[in-house]
Amino acid sequence: MQIPTSSSEERKLEVRKLEISDKNKGFIELLQQLTICDSVSDKDFEDRFQELSVLGDDHVICVIEDDRSGKIIATGSVFIEKKFIRNCGKIGHIEDVVVDSSARGMQLGKKIVEFLTNHARAMGCYKVILDCNVENRGFYEKCGFEHKSIQMAKYFS
Amino acid sequence: MQIPTSSSEERKLEVRKLEISDKNKGFIELLQQLTICDSVSDKDFEDRFQELSVLGDDHVICVIEDDRSGKIIATGSVFIEKKFIRNCGKIGHIEDVVVDSSARGMQLGKKIVEFLTNHARAMGCYKVILDCNVENRGFYEKCGFEHKSIQMAKYFS
Repeated sequence: MQIPTSSSEERKLEVRKLEISDKNKGFIELLQQLTICDSVSDKDFEDRFQELSVLGDDHVICVIEDDRSGKIIATGSVFIEKKFIRNCGKIGHIEDVVVDSSARGMQLGKKIVEFLTNHARAMGCYKVILDCNVENRGFYEKCGFEHKSIQMAKYFS
Repeated sequence: MQIPTSSSEERKLEVRKLEISDKNKGFIELLQQLTICDSVSDKDFEDRFQELSVLGDDHVICVIEDDRSGKIIATGSVFIEKKFIRNCGKIGHIEDVVVDSSARGMQLGKKIVEFLTNHARAMGCYKVILDCNVENRGFYEKCGFEHKSIQMAKYFS
């Protein structure tokens, strides 16, 4: 049974760009559900926020704020890579998509990915790509993505 | 049998950063061996070159020039993504690695990947990643990479 008041539509959980005040709304704690992310000092957060702001539309982080708790419950980012291939084409790289464990099943991940995908398209990209664990393949296929290749990584630390 | 004069060591085929004059040394033709890349006008090339130059060490394209023919025979790029995860960490994204079909077997691809990897490490990245076809997995494993996840893509055009 669906509980109407829990649907993201009725609650108007909108996607918006990250704001500097989101640090106090649990943004870092949300990222901790994704990977290693110790607490970040206000200064480090502001410095990184400013570094990214300089890139403007070439690097966008979006969030969804819970209209009840005031907490950030979903996020994701996209940055635009400028290439020489594809006639000086551009591609969007989606990174760090995460939905709060208490807010799953409300299609928030899909909303985030759609926002980022639409941004990449609006920026003139010929494609948008992302890397994910094989368990998330089905989710991204529902978002219109297809499996293309493999990701290789080399860790320094 | 190894032909000593063909080895990249003896010929001192060094990796260097892309220069604007490389357009006239077959840089675009080399990229055409990788993917769709029609001829690029001088103005489009210079505009994109300048856009990337603004990013400085955050987006580096390197090349190897053939000391005999004066042609660009290998290239690759890396850009640095600034994150909030991993305590405001950074990662390097390697893209568009290609070696001229006539220059295979001289370890030029390995040289390119090492140059880009070393740059990412020097920039303070905690890891460097790339997407490749499954057929190239062995090559990147020889470069010290390991298979981590899958790449998903959505094409707009």
